[in-house]
Amino acid sequence: VTESIQGAEPEGTLPFVYGHVDPTSFPVDQLMAAATEALTYQSQQALNYGDEMGPAALRGYLRAKLERQEALALAPGELFITAGASAGLDTAVRLFAQPGDVVLVEAPSFHEALALIRDHPVKLAAVPLDEDGLIAGALAERLESLAQAGERPALLYTIPTFQNPSGVTMSLVRRRAVIELAAQFGLLVVEDDVYRDLYFDEAPPPSLLQLDQERQRVIRLGSFSKVLAPGLRVGWAAGPAGRIRRMAYCGLMTSGGGANPLAAYVTERFCVEGYLEPHILRLRQNYADRRDILLSALELHMPAGVRWTEPGGGFFVWLTLPQPLTAQVLLREAAKEGLTFATGEAFFAEGGGEHHLRLPFSTIERSEMVRGVELLGELIRALL
Amino acid sequence: VTESIQGAEPEGTLPFVYGHVDPTSFPVDQLMAAATEALTYQSQQALNYGDEMGPAALRGYLRAKLERQEALALAPGELFITAGASAGLDTAVRLFAQPGDVVLVEAPSFHEALALIRDHPVKLAAVPLDEDGLIAGALAERLESLAQAGERPALLYTIPTFQNPSGVTMSLVRRRAVIELAAQFGLLVVEDDVYRDLYFDEAPPPSLLQLDQERQRVIRLGSFSKVLAPGLRVGWAAGPAGRIRRMAYCGLMTSGGGANPLAAYVTERFCVEGYLEPHILRLRQNYADRRDILLSALELHMPAGVRWTEPGGGFFVWLTLPQPLTAQVLLREAAKEGLTFATGEAFFAEGGGEHHLRLPFSTIERSEMVRGVELLGELIRALL
Repeated sequence: VTESIQGAEPEGTLPFVYGHVDPTSFPVDQLMAAATEALTYQSQQALNYGDEMGPAALRGYLRAKLERQEALALAPGELFITAGASAGLDTAVRLFAQPGDVVLVEAPSFHEALALIRDHPVKLAAVPLDEDGLIAGALAERLESLAQAGERPALLYTIPTFQNPSGVTMSLVRRRAVIELAAQFGLLVVEDDVYRDLYFDEAPPPSLLQLDQERQRVIRLGSFSKVLAPGLRVGWAAGPAGRIRRMAYCGLMTSGGGANPLAAYVTERFCVEGYLEPHILRLRQNYADRRDILLSALELHMPAGVRWTEPGGGFFVWLTLPQPLTAQVLLREAAKEGLTFATGEAFFAEGGGEHHLRLPFSTIERSEMVRGVELLGELIRALL
Repeated sequence: VTESIQGAEPEGTLPFVYGHVDPTSFPVDQLMAAATEALTYQSQQALNYGDEMGPAALRGYLRAKLERQEALALAPGELFITAGASAGLDTAVRLFAQPGDVVLVEAPSFHEALALIRDHPVKLAAVPLDEDGLIAGALAERLESLAQAGERPALLYTIPTFQNPSGVTMSLVRRRAVIELAAQFGLLVVEDDVYRDLYFDEAPPPSLLQLDQERQRVIRLGSFSKVLAPGLRVGWAAGPAGRIRRMAYCGLMTSGGGANPLAAYVTERFCVEGYLEPHILRLRQNYADRRDILLSALELHMPAGVRWTEPGGGFFVWLTLPQPLTAQVLLREAAKEGLTFATGEAFFAEGGGEHHLRLPFSTIERSEMVRGVELLGELIRALL
């Protein structure tokens, strides 16, 4: 519909396209207070080139949070501040994949991450997932066949928790298997875990980083984009000290004096003042409520044969249409009524996805969401 | 001395190392007003994913400024907002150089840019400069010999105006010759022009972008790091619409929703409120005064045989020691007295620079600068 489905929303539609944060959720007053504090007491740090690793207090806050909430202990050299998870992924691909290497991704995976990886001179290989996340057996097979073909798989990019676009979460058993395969095949795992804090029912399984007990194989990407505000462009990366050091002191970061000092110090003030945790609790309720509304509406309005995932957190429900109906055909009809969504193909690096569509419940207004699902149900019924 | 000479300063020294902005120059109150405005009136844009090209009013302001001050007319699609000049360079190398391509740089060139380029799978080739900037004849010869060797030179990275580290400015004749060579050899020129606004005597020659009348061969990188605050991480890139479009809508920018929305909106408010132009005038006086102090001190304290550049703007003086004295030997002695500086080698991609050192006048306190030069003179005299 638009140039980029991450861009500005078209008007006059039922926009199921965008899997953004709820724009009414920004804690503007607290962010303003944090900005004023940063510019009052830390202007010399916030406005200048800074430590490549990022503000020390923000790193300390994050490490304490991970220890408290996940019993994940990180040494100071094992976490640094990025310009968001996307920048962390870009840096990892730039530094840790050689030209011609294979980057493994999930099928489906976040389409903008696929575009980001495609800007590098690497090949993509997609491994399917199911309701329990990435299928470890399929990953093993693909790694075997790549090895036989003389290809070098350098990285696995995975979103194990409340995945974008599928909403599924990788089971603990699968997580353990992925870590084992990574060790066996010398694979670096880039774990995009930006939705972890936004769980609605129970806390998700341990992160891949935590399961990698030798601390050798996983770089975990975190972000303030989903739990605070994407416009800050502040995130973090954690993993083996050597890899973290290489990323934090890469040419781009050294030249820029760390990732986004002003935004990082504003984020630091926000966190250290104690604003983040209550905000995350509010977000969980907000998004859980939205998820419930979407799932109820789907239950009520979808004809038999349509299937969908039931995410325990995050922003996304993934819908599967009954054969032979494709999402493109459905979109063509839906668009006439002002209803837009992302069809499956964009999320598949090696084809497929024709019968899927993504329904994010994070951005669209609650009443529009219900109207949208009702309309979707009518259209599917008419097209079947 | 430290991990990175862009990092935090070591204590108890006469630090001639850092070519940063003057940290006492930050317009903190005006930036705070700009931040408050952005978060009061534009919070939805500043805190969310945004237009990949950057805030429209900031782009409009920059295009009007270029037209007014340089008679450089740019179409809306020919300029976008970056996360600083370094991010612009990183994006250009990532998208416009293929693995194995040659990236041409000046000898000397900004060492952090060399590190940034080296993070990509390309080869570096260095072309010498003199008092009139990059030597066009040497560039022509190098391009010929690369062509004969079957190498593909993809990019030329140049800092034509008040260069870091040399302080020299490319003459108009040389600029024209570079554009001609770029057309002849199919070379893309990345023009890092971040010091242009900080001229002390007369305005520098037209930018390479302006001289490229077909608007095909030059991507010009600008920044708010030198004229406002590096901690914002906001800059811009201008050039052919197709190239700009490719950069602005690359995977990283599309995934992140544009470069640093919050900082970009704060910058927009700062500019649109009319704070930038008077601030640049103050900076010019400040840095001109510092340059004069440094040049006078050098005149007074350097022994015969030492040569240095006389920059018409920017942050840097480049010193050449008489043979056989090397900057490393001088640094060893100087460090004992707490005087530190960057020696030449770091700035040369293919070796050389042993007899050079960089003396930035932008960061060091005025009185320390004079004491430093006095000490340097004594040490050189003793070592000759």
